Amino acid sequence: MKEYVIGIDIGGTFTKSGFVDRDGNCYAESVSPTDTFDNVEDYLENLVKELKNAEKQIEEPYKIVGVGIGAPNGNYHNGTIENATNLKWRGVIPLAELVNKHYNLPVKLTNDANAAALGEMVYGGAEGMKDFIMITLGTGLGSGIVVNGDLVYGHDGFAGELGHVNVVENGRKCGCGNLGCLETYVSAPGIKRTVFELLASDSNGSDLVNYSFSELDSEMIYNAAVKNDPVALKAFDITGKILGKKLADSVAHTSPEAVFLFGGLSKSGDYIFKPTKKYMEESVMGTFKNKVKILPSQLTDKNAAVMGASALIWKELDK
Amino acid sequence: MKEYVIGIDIGGTFTKSGFVDRDGNCYAESVSPTDTFDNVEDYLENLVKELKNAEKQIEEPYKIVGVGIGAPNGNYHNGTIENATNLKWRGVIPLAELVNKHYNLPVKLTNDANAAALGEMVYGGAEGMKDFIMITLGTGLGSGIVVNGDLVYGHDGFAGELGHVNVVENGRKCGCGNLGCLETYVSAPGIKRTVFELLASDSNGSDLVNYSFSELDSEMIYNAAVKNDPVALKAFDITGKILGKKLADSVAHTSPEAVFLFGGLSKSGDYIFKPTKKYMEESVMGTFKNKVKILPSQLTDKNAAVMGASALIWKELDK
Repeated sequence: MKEYVIGIDIGGTFTKSGFVDRDGNCYAESVSPTDTFDNVEDYLENLVKELKNAEKQIEEPYKIVGVGIGAPNGNYHNGTIENATNLKWRGVIPLAELVNKHYNLPVKLTNDANAAALGEMVYGGAEGMKDFIMITLGTGLGSGIVVNGDLVYGHDGFAGELGHVNVVENGRKCGCGNLGCLETYVSAPGIKRTVFELLASDSNGSDLVNYSFSELDSEMIYNAAVKNDPVALKAFDITGKILGKKLADSVAHTSPEAVFLFGGLSKSGDYIFKPTKKYMEESVMGTFKNKVKILPSQLTDKNAAVMGASALIWKELDK
Repeated sequence: MKEYVIGIDIGGTFTKSGFVDRDGNCYAESVSPTDTFDNVEDYLENLVKELKNAEKQIEEPYKIVGVGIGAPNGNYHNGTIENATNLKWRGVIPLAELVNKHYNLPVKLTNDANAAALGEMVYGGAEGMKDFIMITLGTGLGSGIVVNGDLVYGHDGFAGELGHVNVVENGRKCGCGNLGCLETYVSAPGIKRTVFELLASDSNGSDLVNYSFSELDSEMIYNAAVKNDPVALKAFDITGKILGKKLADSVAHTSPEAVFLFGGLSKSGDYIFKPTKKYMEESVMGTFKNKVKILPSQLTDKNAAVMGASALIWKELDK
């Protein structure tokens, strides 16, 4: 009988889900609201209703073997969501326990970047790799660190927050409350902030002068770079430099075989990969030079988070 | 029958060894030269002769169950010493294989800081901890990272080189060839360099004006701090600040339960621990605040490296 894992990706606004098989094929996908529910029980009741509906699309005989969840501030050890600022539910939410009331199956949860790392390992470009780092570049910078074939969760279950290592003392204000975190420089909003700094310094010859801060997005910066816009090109170089130099530090920690870049900014290809690789190699200790690959994620954007969440269970069943 | 592991700590000048039991008691210690042998086979022949001699001191019935080795640039995966700059033997030395010719037993090897981390886990203050970081402060800054109960070796076997993360762009020259590495600021020579910078800036009221660069050592700086020497106190604060801020980055990587400080500089007690803790807490992401302990190593200096090396085998036998 065919086996599926229910993969659930909880975002601030929407929750995406699907039934994922062992090979990473995602069936009966659905989307339901997150932020319309003030309490998590009502949210789950609605989500489960959606899932049961979606499940009807599966025709052949099947069995559901577990539920994997990617959620903001998801704690793998406790199966909880803890103090997630972009969710309405305050404090510590025992999500796995609540899901268990609906599905009497293994339920595992972690944050979305960790889930993406597992997805890369189970279905993507990291198949067979024992040591790698996943960097997700979106509105923030998320990361999942894999050591010796397992995700690093750390003592408190929240390891792998590379978006919040410090880059510039008293630098840009970060959503986490600190100043100068990596994600304030390396992310979609990060590169935009860099463009605005560069325009302030020398706007000569740049078409990016025509956009307001709220208009400009990283795709426009990419399109400008393709047309050789000097500010866009410099912004990519600076972004790659900051990322590359920080990855050199990460390499000194866990000596990965590869670093995968995933998400919006990573679609900029050479504009981001080349400087990242160049400055990482310049900064990294001799021992690690020319050993670490910087690779694009092989996960499809479409349902990477759902697939990653499901990988939590497949990985568990492999143990 | 009592079981022993032969623990061997290979330093640039001397090699220390001993027979270590399951509880971390070290018997029949010996010291033999390292740098008088131009080739590694002669070195090993002499070392084994010393070990066989020392072994005679053990009286009760016993059995040797393995050989654990801490060595510069020791590669755990391959059992090799690779391009160690402070040893005479060039290139890649298949040390475990060579030792196997003398002892047909499990032989494991890693670098000295990793061995110290294992020692802390098997015999020291990290007993029962699954996630911690060991920082050894001596002429350099070494580190061993433990994740989920296992040492992080990484893809190439050399993970955990926190001494060589970058602190200051184009900063102090490091022995590794790069500029601005952590160990050029946080180590016995590092704090001395900081003292000299401070003296250059404002030597007023400091007794440290009376020492040459070659005379001054970290113990003198400690003794001056005890007497409230302003430069010594400031040097400790700066050293702790740089270490604390960098540890905040390490915490974001692996979320350890504790960070242990070992070696010379860690003997300075509050002078180094207080600023390290304070600045780590100031810098670290909110998620990790007030979670991570900074603790003194519980390993005795005397034979910590030999004990750590032996722990490589005890850890292996536990699997």
